[in-house]
Amino acid sequence: DIAIKVAVARGDGIGPEIMDATLRILEAAGSRVEPEFIELGEKVYLSGNTAGIEQSAWEAISRNKIILKAPITTPQGKGYKSLNVTLRKSLGLFANVRPVAGLHPYVHTHFPEMDVVIIRENEEDLYAGIEHRQTQDVVQCLKLITRPGCERIVRYAFEYAKAYGRKKVTCMLKDNIMKLTDGLFHRVFDEVAAEYPTIESEVQIIDIGSARLAAKPENYDVVVTSNLYGDIISDIAAEIGGSVGMAGSANIGKNVAMFEAIHGSAPDIAGKGIANPSGLINAAIMMLAHVGKSDIADKIKNAWLVTLEEGYHTADIYQEGVSKQKVGTQAFADA
Amino acid sequence: DIAIKVAVARGDGIGPEIMDATLRILEAAGSRVEPEFIELGEKVYLSGNTAGIEQSAWEAISRNKIILKAPITTPQGKGYKSLNVTLRKSLGLFANVRPVAGLHPYVHTHFPEMDVVIIRENEEDLYAGIEHRQTQDVVQCLKLITRPGCERIVRYAFEYAKAYGRKKVTCMLKDNIMKLTDGLFHRVFDEVAAEYPTIESEVQIIDIGSARLAAKPENYDVVVTSNLYGDIISDIAAEIGGSVGMAGSANIGKNVAMFEAIHGSAPDIAGKGIANPSGLINAAIMMLAHVGKSDIADKIKNAWLVTLEEGYHTADIYQEGVSKQKVGTQAFADA
Ligand SMILES: CC(C)[C@H](C(=O)O)[C@@H](O)C(=O)O
Ligand SMILES: CC(C)[C@H](C(=O)O)[C@@H](O)C(=O)O
Repeated sequence: DIAIKVAVARGDGIGPEIMDATLRILEAAGSRVEPEFIELGEKVYLSGNTAGIEQSAWEAISRNKIILKAPITTPQGKGYKSLNVTLRKSLGLFANVRPVAGLHPYVHTHFPEMDVVIIRENEEDLYAGIEHRQTQDVVQCLKLITRPGCERIVRYAFEYAKAYGRKKVTCMLKDNIMKLTDGLFHRVFDEVAAEYPTIESEVQIIDIGSARLAAKPENYDVVVTSNLYGDIISDIAAEIGGSVGMAGSANIGKNVAMFEAIHGSAPDIAGKGIANPSGLINAAIMMLAHVGKSDIADKIKNAWLVTLEEGYHTADIYQEGVSKQKVGTQAFADA
Repeated sequence: DIAIKVAVARGDGIGPEIMDATLRILEAAGSRVEPEFIELGEKVYLSGNTAGIEQSAWEAISRNKIILKAPITTPQGKGYKSLNVTLRKSLGLFANVRPVAGLHPYVHTHFPEMDVVIIRENEEDLYAGIEHRQTQDVVQCLKLITRPGCERIVRYAFEYAKAYGRKKVTCMLKDNIMKLTDGLFHRVFDEVAAEYPTIESEVQIIDIGSARLAAKPENYDVVVTSNLYGDIISDIAAEIGGSVGMAGSANIGKNVAMFEAIHGSAPDIAGKGIANPSGLINAAIMMLAHVGKSDIADKIKNAWLVTLEEGYHTADIYQEGVSKQKVGTQAFADA
């Protein structure tokens, strides 16, 4: 069992609390994760660095190749670029993988059967960040879609389905309106799907697709989509499956992978020790599986499930009659 | 009580069936709607008219100023332009109003308390239809946002809230990423909101906003947003509130207004007489209220509610133990 070096960003808001809890769990489970802490986020932004990340952090990332990142706060104001987007693009993290499974009755959901993985393209689309002002009153943003970008993400989704024994891949798009851009994604999806005849495939328009996902998530298995739609439907899936506070995500590239909670830095409850560390714990579990430590990943996953089943619940998921004890971040990690 | 002239498009797929049912109800309620039937949709497209609408239809529309439209089918293939989008833009139908209220227990929903109105900008955004191919493998679509467009829709939302006694307007955007385009919408929202101090206002990022809407729709009242987000969240609201088959919508312009169901033409069940006409009935109710016939609108609305309460349900909303009788389109309209 070898040690793995990880570039760790403790983040802002509730970030440091949930990261400390997560690292403690990683250590207790014998994962041999060796964190190298990196500087990025609010403090760096406010020091006048509009990218929000130190040069030394980039170096640590290229040394370690694996990042575990707590949520960060981007200060208000025009000059600041989103660090999430910068990291995803600079490092070529093309696939954002977001699994959500219902944990009924331990965590409230109307959808006990749901078990869905949203696979979101992570570099293109309106996130290309190309915006301009045409006149004082007219502004534009460019949505960019490329064939290699579509191919990479669609193939990733089918390979993922194959690796994890999943039966169906649904693609969601708006190609009845965006015939060139979303149309290209659709065409590539059909081409790649044909190479995986044992995996069922379907394409839905994003409006009715996301509506059906919200109403009957148990009918979905793997969903692949472009960046902005994926941003929206992954939050929907996480929230109706229990809470966005519970979901972890993997940002996968050729050389580097980054693992993070899908929620934000929640400055309103920062420092109070009440935040739910589950999103980051699940991100860490995905990280361990990614580096080949599936046994330890499973061990932590099971401990996490048992903790929820035994009713140790943070405030955000506390339910009268189901929860046994309302616990803080630390006590949850201890349990 | 005066007659009102309406340009009526019977549509494709299930369109003619649900339109006949709706017109029969309008007549029975004494609405004095005088339909002038217009030609648009599949047949027109397939005759070689890539816009899908006859010149005579445009003339009827400018004479009547009110359109009641059943869903249409756009043939597969590159050349055909979306008629929905053409009508909205050519006629300046800037506001798309989509109310959804839970009808629990008569129609299944997890959200009995929900009562939300989505007000969607209807002309701009990625729907501007400006797409181009940059290289063989790179395609782009332009998202267009203008200050007058934002002002018009945001003001409409607040005026709507005022007129209907609603307490809160929520704006959903992704301006943490699209700082110029969604940022402009946000700024205009704040400016206009300040003119309505008695109406509560809030702005949410579209990812978490749509997730919270899907998980707890009862926390929302009026939601205003740009075109594509509105397309997505209005389908979500309708589906989790019962079914997209139930919701009507109004497309409001300065001179012309168009009323339609939010669902599509459902070719798979066309001609079977089983389609739920509720979406179009609700559109017709909105139409009557719009032309000042609120008494008849209320009469039809009540009859529709009583029909649902008495358990006369079409197949799409049939529930063992709740429904009394599974009825077809005609029988539902009769009831
Ligand atoms: C913070 C923001 C840039 C980010 C995104 O839009 O991708 C977040 O919402 C997410 O989903 O990871
Ligand atoms: C048919 C399509 C062009 C239309 C849209 O995207 O606006 C539909 O989904 C709607 O919501 O009315």
